[in-house]
Amino acid sequence: MPRRVRLDVDERRTQLVELGIEEFGSRPYDEVSIDAIAQAAGISKGLVYHYFPTKRAFYIACIREGATRIVSSIEAVPDDSTAAPFDQLRAAIDRYLEYVRVHGVAFATLMRSGVGADKEITEIIDETRDVLLALLRKGLGELFPDAVEQKGSLLDIAMRGWIGLVESSSIAWVDTTLAKDLKKVAPTAEQLRDTLSEALIAIVASALKMSAKSRGKK
Amino acid sequence: MPRRVRLDVDERRTQLVELGIEEFGSRPYDEVSIDAIAQAAGISKGLVYHYFPTKRAFYIACIREGATRIVSSIEAVPDDSTAAPFDQLRAAIDRYLEYVRVHGVAFATLMRSGVGADKEITEIIDETRDVLLALLRKGLGELFPDAVEQKGSLLDIAMRGWIGLVESSSIAWVDTTLAKDLKKVAPTAEQLRDTLSEALIAIVASALKMSAKSRGKK
Repeated sequence: MPRRVRLDVDERRTQLVELGIEEFGSRPYDEVSIDAIAQAAGISKGLVYHYFPTKRAFYIACIREGATRIVSSIEAVPDDSTAAPFDQLRAAIDRYLEYVRVHGVAFATLMRSGVGADKEITEIIDETRDVLLALLRKGLGELFPDAVEQKGSLLDIAMRGWIGLVESSSIAWVDTTLAKDLKKVAPTAEQLRDTLSEALIAIVASALKMSAKSRGKK
Repeated sequence: MPRRVRLDVDERRTQLVELGIEEFGSRPYDEVSIDAIAQAAGISKGLVYHYFPTKRAFYIACIREGATRIVSSIEAVPDDSTAAPFDQLRAAIDRYLEYVRVHGVAFATLMRSGVGADKEITEIIDETRDVLLALLRKGLGELFPDAVEQKGSLLDIAMRGWIGLVESSSIAWVDTTLAKDLKKVAPTAEQLRDTLSEALIAIVASALKMSAKSRGKK
């Protein structure tokens, strides 16, 4: 057992969430043991429950921190004004897929609501999607300067759809990389990123075309 | 109160599920009342609970029936050998979106797992996706005769991703059509179908191109 080290409240909380992200990221929810977390942190199980009253509360705290990180890792893509907007988009997808790769099990479990999604978790997922959508809009504004995007428009709906494409294919990708017999055929992150970025361009171009067509009719 | 009519067990069950699909389709889960269902069916609340021990069990039965219907409505697209494969695909998407339109609230609630997804519901959703995927594969085989699709391959992952695109954009579309202030800008089902079908072609073409490229390298 590691030597007990005195940490202040915030440090301890951070340490536990760190351990939780790792644990929930590498095995199913039901197999994550608070005992093991306590042991790894070098504290008693009771002290863990002092910070997080239930395993579920602990899980939600880890999910919340994970969502914050995925967003900041994408925001962190250098806003290099010399890089073409399309390359910036590709770089952002790379960061997203890197996060998915590292936290595979947790990501797939969460997005599948395999542990019984509750309101709080649904809210975290929705908020994260909204932030990603806002980032996407900013990037797309440079790629398609003429796009007038309005809430509820075909373009808005198509962009939300693309986030669904990214999430679903990420889940399928995680499944593939985790299955021993499929590992060999699994695409690389770069291949998946190329298909996702090309899909976005096609989807946005199609939505803009349809909208222009219907405006022409009116 | 409607006159009580004697129905046999199967007929009664079918009648209740029919009413349930309508009710769950038009208001949030928490607002669906078993009292109202019993009244509409012309039977006692107790008799409803005889068929379905809990509201949740009743909900699951309705979801299961809804999933069966969405699949059969898509399968029912006339296998018209004179129609081009792309038109058949478009017709299938039309049927899917028609189902989404009619059962808007239930569809959005279910896909958001807003009522707390449990294992059974997750299984129904997963099974439905698998059936849709099988139908999609059949159709794509005609559109891209050279496509060798292997479980876990980029093409397989991209197709699962496309199902996610269809689901997410359908949810966003339902939200838009239900919001009074957005109704005006909401795209038509035909516009959404066009974007979804064009997206599929772009996604599959991209996945096939990446896979060919990587095979070339080996």
